[in-house]
Amino acid sequence: MVDYICSYLDSIRDRRVFPGVQPGFVHDRIPENAPLDGEPWPDIFADVENVIMPGVTHWQSPRMHAYYPALTSYPSMLAEMLTNAINCLGFTWASSPACTELEMIVTNWLGKMIGLPYHFLHNKESDGGGVIQTTASESTLISLLSGRNITIQRYLKLHPDVPIHEIHSKLVAYCSDQAHSSVEKAALIGLVILRYVESDAEYSMTGAKLLEAITEDKKKGLIPFWVCATLGTTGCCSFDDLENVAQVCHKEQLWCHADAAYAGCSFICPEYRKWLKGVDLIDSIALNPSKWLMVHFDCTVMWVRNSSALHCAFNVSPLYLTHEFSGLAIDYMHWQIPLSKRFRSLKLWFVIRSYGVKGLQEHIKKGVKLAEKFESLIKADKRFEIPAKRHLGLVVFRLKGDNMTTETLCKRINSRGKIHCVPANLNGKYVIRFCITSQRTTEQDIETDWKEITDVTNNLLSENSLDIALQGNY
Amino acid sequence: MVDYICSYLDSIRDRRVFPGVQPGFVHDRIPENAPLDGEPWPDIFADVENVIMPGVTHWQSPRMHAYYPALTSYPSMLAEMLTNAINCLGFTWASSPACTELEMIVTNWLGKMIGLPYHFLHNKESDGGGVIQTTASESTLISLLSGRNITIQRYLKLHPDVPIHEIHSKLVAYCSDQAHSSVEKAALIGLVILRYVESDAEYSMTGAKLLEAITEDKKKGLIPFWVCATLGTTGCCSFDDLENVAQVCHKEQLWCHADAAYAGCSFICPEYRKWLKGVDLIDSIALNPSKWLMVHFDCTVMWVRNSSALHCAFNVSPLYLTHEFSGLAIDYMHWQIPLSKRFRSLKLWFVIRSYGVKGLQEHIKKGVKLAEKFESLIKADKRFEIPAKRHLGLVVFRLKGDNMTTETLCKRINSRGKIHCVPANLNGKYVIRFCITSQRTTEQDIETDWKEITDVTNNLLSENSLDIALQGNY
Repeated sequence: MVDYICSYLDSIRDRRVFPGVQPGFVHDRIPENAPLDGEPWPDIFADVENVIMPGVTHWQSPRMHAYYPALTSYPSMLAEMLTNAINCLGFTWASSPACTELEMIVTNWLGKMIGLPYHFLHNKESDGGGVIQTTASESTLISLLSGRNITIQRYLKLHPDVPIHEIHSKLVAYCSDQAHSSVEKAALIGLVILRYVESDAEYSMTGAKLLEAITEDKKKGLIPFWVCATLGTTGCCSFDDLENVAQVCHKEQLWCHADAAYAGCSFICPEYRKWLKGVDLIDSIALNPSKWLMVHFDCTVMWVRNSSALHCAFNVSPLYLTHEFSGLAIDYMHWQIPLSKRFRSLKLWFVIRSYGVKGLQEHIKKGVKLAEKFESLIKADKRFEIPAKRHLGLVVFRLKGDNMTTETLCKRINSRGKIHCVPANLNGKYVIRFCITSQRTTEQDIETDWKEITDVTNNLLSENSLDIALQGNY
Repeated sequence: MVDYICSYLDSIRDRRVFPGVQPGFVHDRIPENAPLDGEPWPDIFADVENVIMPGVTHWQSPRMHAYYPALTSYPSMLAEMLTNAINCLGFTWASSPACTELEMIVTNWLGKMIGLPYHFLHNKESDGGGVIQTTASESTLISLLSGRNITIQRYLKLHPDVPIHEIHSKLVAYCSDQAHSSVEKAALIGLVILRYVESDAEYSMTGAKLLEAITEDKKKGLIPFWVCATLGTTGCCSFDDLENVAQVCHKEQLWCHADAAYAGCSFICPEYRKWLKGVDLIDSIALNPSKWLMVHFDCTVMWVRNSSALHCAFNVSPLYLTHEFSGLAIDYMHWQIPLSKRFRSLKLWFVIRSYGVKGLQEHIKKGVKLAEKFESLIKADKRFEIPAKRHLGLVVFRLKGDNMTTETLCKRINSRGKIHCVPANLNGKYVIRFCITSQRTTEQDIETDWKEITDVTNNLLSENSLDIALQGNY
């Protein structure tokens, strides 16, 4: 398996990045029922190449430009091998002390690496700290639920006679119209009103627009309680104005959560921390080392200023989960939705130690440089436009003119399977997202990818002009 | 790493199962800050034994009798190595077709292996199917949220003028007083009233008691909407009367979820399916192959009768997540709380194929046989009692008399670190749970463990009688 994995990753460029299969393709290759008797390993192993690989979207390929990165690396994989052999469940400190303690230390490491204020770190003086969650979407939900609980409690103190559900019915959450769909999901689960704040020309939510919405809602008798500021939106990697958003939240007593899933990784480079301005006033922030820091999925680090807010939202303590040090050590089950967690800090620890801070910074800088190269290629071709400023490793582009042509271009590119991109909708404009994902991507790869894009474009546009010419004939 | 893992698992009996460390022990062994430069692999690797292992609770040890099992196996670990190398994110079918399709097939395999009705399987005629969730607690939450949504919608149709939050404020969820703490957490998140139904002398929730509670609540104007039936409680592995509970739910239009986290694994043996009677009437069921089926954590399989109930609760569909087959293929992001999932079906597939149905059945039967052996040792010692019937691999026992002596016994056993058990509270009785966990456990191990328990007991009781004698002197 080790050999297979090394050869898979070494030769990943040779594989079609996006599979050319139809729904149901695995169905015909696997029996309807489980085998009664065990099968020999060679038979099982052979099916990896025969059954599985033809249907895999190869996220580690330098040709993968869809979504945001989901990178793995050898130190990360080695750590997880050990994690799976130990296979301890981390819910209380006692269920595996090393699991809890390493998580505290490594989230402190990473918090310092991105320049978070001291109160977000585990320390003896404050109530803050980091925790590894499964996903950024879960972190968003957890912060929304904590904010919901705190606001209801605060309101109840002032108005003890108002029923909880009356308060609940008035709670309003806010995010930019560019925020990730997981914010909408969190609001659905939390059963609160979600209000989208219109972003500005740079696709940013400003403090002024947020304040306007909050003021309006308060006039209606509603209770604004929570804001998600996005640092690096999914559509075009735009940034909300955290500094002013945080000030508004602070003044209005709203929980402010920063979703920095992708872009947060770049904050290990000081030059990108400009977007973090205002972080000292917010309540929680999450980023995914599983995106751009070569720690494989899942690994989201979430830091909170006030961990008791999480405890109050989630704390349930039966006898079978109490232990000698209950109350003295951290029991991470109170920081998260599931009871149990895997020993995920191990992979983050191995990766940080293997690359060092400098190695990880170089990895980020290289990704940005390659995106700049792609951007310059697009800019030099007058048929294209870049409707949103490039930030970090993501370039969004489109063919000038109607949406349909760009949509066709995107579909054709994907159906050829040589490179893989997904579209986004920027205020009605259909764009193609081209994200540098893999640590294996070279300048040569970018040139090859660009050639693929221009080949498809040339064909598409010549057909189109033929169409127009033909239409002219009728 | 492969060699280290093999030797770790081969010699796991030699390690202290429960570590003798204090909170903060890792802190002194790791620098405060991440290294600037990358470190050589041998330094990192050496810290596994120096820093990590002294603080690990060894869940794979035959001496581990706490909680419920969390087993791993070589086929499971091999699959995950591949999963981590591919590192695809499964949210839509397109984000990795093989990941989605294998999950559909393998959850069908397992569903058939435990004898689930056809409507819980992925098929062309119905809307049911299986999905791999992170944990059983998450499955409980998902079913509660789906039931909440369905009930609110149904109620709104009948009473379109009633505000959603008024309906919400009246929703009542039910579970036995023996249910897992994750049910309480789910109700906290769903912000619904949770009512504990008193269990009977066998620690089971009966249909009659449930109906009594529902009728009472309806008289108060409340809206009963969801029931969690536990198949294998955490305290003593008791079983709710699913047959009658399901009938009540069906008649009263409540969502019925079965939490079979541990015991559900045993249903692959037909002789244990008596507890599944009534399953044809319920709405969802979850079990953890990550507990007793040697698939390492995390892996919870949840089956639902009506997957659209999940979609309605979670569906959000931005353009960047749509694809050519949206609506035609399953997008698992609509079946779960996080957006993304790991390729977890691979380890379930490898394990089922490696052992075959028969091999897995033998593994379950062996665990039960060893628990029977331990039970007979306890029964032969008149100082002990077994206050709840043994089911499957879990024996609960206590010293006759006050709770304090058993509590001291439990603490002393754990502080010696040779075996590890946790306590539970059964209607005021403090009991020690002794669960057969590891596939490595032999009859000899049980005898050694029993000797450890009786050694500690002998010392404890002789001290106690000395105390009593001394007290008599004064």
